Amino acid sequence: MADKKLVEQITSRDQDFAQWYTDIVKKAELMDYASVKGFMVIKPAGYAIWELIQQQLDARFKETGVENVYLPLLIPESLLKKEAEHVEGFAPEVAWVTQGGTQPLPERYCIRPTSETLFCDFYAKDIRSYRDLPRVYNQWCSVVRWEKETRPFLRSREFLWQEGHTAHATLEEAQERTIRMLNVYADFCEQVLAMPVIRGQKTDKEKFAGAHETYSIEALMHDGKALQAATSHNFGDGFAKAYGVTFADKDNTVKHVFQTSWGATTRLIGAIIMVHGDDSGLVLPPKVAPTQVVVIPVAAHKPGVMEACRDVADRLGKCFRAKIDDSEKSPGFKFAEAEMRGIPVRVEIGPRDLEEGKAVLVRRDTREKYVVAIDSIEQETAALLDTIQKEMLERARAHYASHTSVARTYEEFADCIEHKPGFIKAMWCGDQACEDRLKEDFAATSRNIPFAQEHLSDTCVCCGRPAKKMVYWGRAY
Amino acid sequence: MADKKLVEQITSRDQDFAQWYTDIVKKAELMDYASVKGFMVIKPAGYAIWELIQQQLDARFKETGVENVYLPLLIPESLLKKEAEHVEGFAPEVAWVTQGGTQPLPERYCIRPTSETLFCDFYAKDIRSYRDLPRVYNQWCSVVRWEKETRPFLRSREFLWQEGHTAHATLEEAQERTIRMLNVYADFCEQVLAMPVIRGQKTDKEKFAGAHETYSIEALMHDGKALQAATSHNFGDGFAKAYGVTFADKDNTVKHVFQTSWGATTRLIGAIIMVHGDDSGLVLPPKVAPTQVVVIPVAAHKPGVMEACRDVADRLGKCFRAKIDDSEKSPGFKFAEAEMRGIPVRVEIGPRDLEEGKAVLVRRDTREKYVVAIDSIEQETAALLDTIQKEMLERARAHYASHTSVARTYEEFADCIEHKPGFIKAMWCGDQACEDRLKEDFAATSRNIPFAQEHLSDTCVCCGRPAKKMVYWGRAY
Repeated sequence: MADKKLVEQITSRDQDFAQWYTDIVKKAELMDYASVKGFMVIKPAGYAIWELIQQQLDARFKETGVENVYLPLLIPESLLKKEAEHVEGFAPEVAWVTQGGTQPLPERYCIRPTSETLFCDFYAKDIRSYRDLPRVYNQWCSVVRWEKETRPFLRSREFLWQEGHTAHATLEEAQERTIRMLNVYADFCEQVLAMPVIRGQKTDKEKFAGAHETYSIEALMHDGKALQAATSHNFGDGFAKAYGVTFADKDNTVKHVFQTSWGATTRLIGAIIMVHGDDSGLVLPPKVAPTQVVVIPVAAHKPGVMEACRDVADRLGKCFRAKIDDSEKSPGFKFAEAEMRGIPVRVEIGPRDLEEGKAVLVRRDTREKYVVAIDSIEQETAALLDTIQKEMLERARAHYASHTSVARTYEEFADCIEHKPGFIKAMWCGDQACEDRLKEDFAATSRNIPFAQEHLSDTCVCCGRPAKKMVYWGRAY
Repeated sequence: MADKKLVEQITSRDQDFAQWYTDIVKKAELMDYASVKGFMVIKPAGYAIWELIQQQLDARFKETGVENVYLPLLIPESLLKKEAEHVEGFAPEVAWVTQGGTQPLPERYCIRPTSETLFCDFYAKDIRSYRDLPRVYNQWCSVVRWEKETRPFLRSREFLWQEGHTAHATLEEAQERTIRMLNVYADFCEQVLAMPVIRGQKTDKEKFAGAHETYSIEALMHDGKALQAATSHNFGDGFAKAYGVTFADKDNTVKHVFQTSWGATTRLIGAIIMVHGDDSGLVLPPKVAPTQVVVIPVAAHKPGVMEACRDVADRLGKCFRAKIDDSEKSPGFKFAEAEMRGIPVRVEIGPRDLEEGKAVLVRRDTREKYVVAIDSIEQETAALLDTIQKEMLERARAHYASHTSVARTYEEFADCIEHKPGFIKAMWCGDQACEDRLKEDFAATSRNIPFAQEHLSDTCVCCGRPAKKMVYWGRAY
């Protein structure tokens, strides 16, 4: 039995989702607020998840030819201002540096909220000819956006992310890269985070400031709210024209490059919590679990138990991210703690198990128990981790399916919002006025125009005029 | 023969070391200046070296129990000011944020020049009892120091680094951690960067602002100037007292913790260049070479050559960071380019080699050539990479040995400075006035008081009074 001391302090997920989320973040020791208002401290258990996200996402990037670089933290105001839409989108939320050392600066610098302007400035010097293209660069860094309201991992004044910035000779190639990276994110979310996502295009209203086209992947949290998990933008040659990024093409004419950018952030940790967590704490997909298996001795004082547990932990440590909890806490407390931290598999070994050459494997996600032979514990654990990873995705898919509704009329839309938390699929005329109205009336936004279009009806869910596209709608984080 | 077009553009190392350094940084495409004054862009070839440094250093940290975290980018002025010496040391060189979003901030924030103050602030909340100790945290991030003069990798207004910050129950434990991390750095520099270092303690004059004791590892560049490669500080309980970081000990009394911090930066890339590089460009130790082996076809148009090269590159790619240069440049140009980038081994395969089932391996460091059987190319390459790694360290050690002099008197010191570029070993009375004078007269600073003490004479090299310690002196980057 898991000890209640730890779990009692968590709010029930169905009772108060927001408080439940905050409780997990705190109890699983993922992050803490800093005394710097709106900023966060990512603690070891949280940062270790980010490291696993980084490693696996970075490897997938590199398979597509991405190279990592590092650009400056600060952007001179004059540089930020060269692209009108972009500066309009970001200027209200940046932090300004006005003094360097003992001297006031001749020009204000902002802390990067995103680095399009810096990459443009760099590419303008760095790219000369078609031979220099494509440039497929990415950086891992932190950015600052002066948000008014903050929530752990979901919204804070500083967050960690990666931002890819590419330059191409043609619009087609830029478009191909935009979609390719969206697919990398989608595949990563599904295969690694066990989180199904909807791939699609953002409406003009929801586009990134300065982008020609923005694409997103949208995930569904347990409470039925949507979360934008990553975005990928095709800039066309808009930025290149504003920043003078040109190249001499094969035909010796000078042309503007076509650019893309794409990013994913520490929000993904919030998404993992909200898709998979339960009333006992975090539930981590094995591929991003800093500890995949924990061995917990039962009746540790009995002869042979601790030795056997250490031996099993050593063996498991050669195949997985495994550890032993040989502290002096009670087994029940350790079980609860392992559950709170979302460790996918725990191994219990007590004197009777030992006599029979057996161990008990317990799944975090379903709590099912399996009695297995200690001799084959590596194989059993490997198979169980695979099963967990797979079934976590299946369950998340089922949740998504059961929390996606169709609305054909304004009234149906209202009914979905009221009674059916989740995505709403509905047709749209393409007019921003309808987006504005649905947002005003229901606090629901267009999530994206999915690649997988369906014809649900002939008319816009909002205004009744002829429909152009099917859109996913929802309330979002 | 290596093509001259690329190499002609490099200044000779012996003629103008500073210009040679800048030329390599540029030609090997390691970094570029940003249009943000004093800031740098780390390009793919440079960043890939940093990634290899990070991975290997991080793995060594984790073996000693280090956990990674992430703390805020910004420090409120009131927080920075709590430790008097520390703020005095850093305040003149920080960048100040005065506006967040559309509002002026009620209090200035500085961009972290280092994060002792933030860690103290966090630990003050996070540490309650002896059970919470030790805390052995580290973060990889960038810091900003508003330097007046900048040089690629060696000094810039922003640089990348890691900063470890630990908290312990006793001074002894903090001291043990301080030295342990210094040894991790030293071992890393020697075994991975092939760069011998001197381990020792900084004099009070050269201590970190706010530290009880500072230790460093000091390396010798090819031009005879020293470079501080990493530092490790024992803070005693000074910061803990200033920031109120306390814990309830086993005996139920409340005590202040003892702290350490330790860091290494992107300077290490500059050190690699200046220890190993030559007139043909960069020379990378195999363990930090983003590409360890490049396969270059000779007479690529002849039947079978390209296929054989691709096959060899595929095989090598399974064992090493290997690639093929199948571009349309001439082989000579490719050789020069591979040399400029410091790739440890190049494989040349031409029609005649192919007939005989042979390939030519060429070492970057010595240019020696080896004709080997293609059948055993993996083993031959592995052995050669090992040899290169080992011999690069041996050569750097020999250079250090032949560029370290002993001075027993002020006149001998002057002679060394004039005629023998390198480290100067000399006795010191312990008085800062002598350090000041040697700096004033010769622009030479105390590098450190080495753990491996020797008794060179009874008197201070500067003032002639009784000597207390042997010190390494030198001009430094």
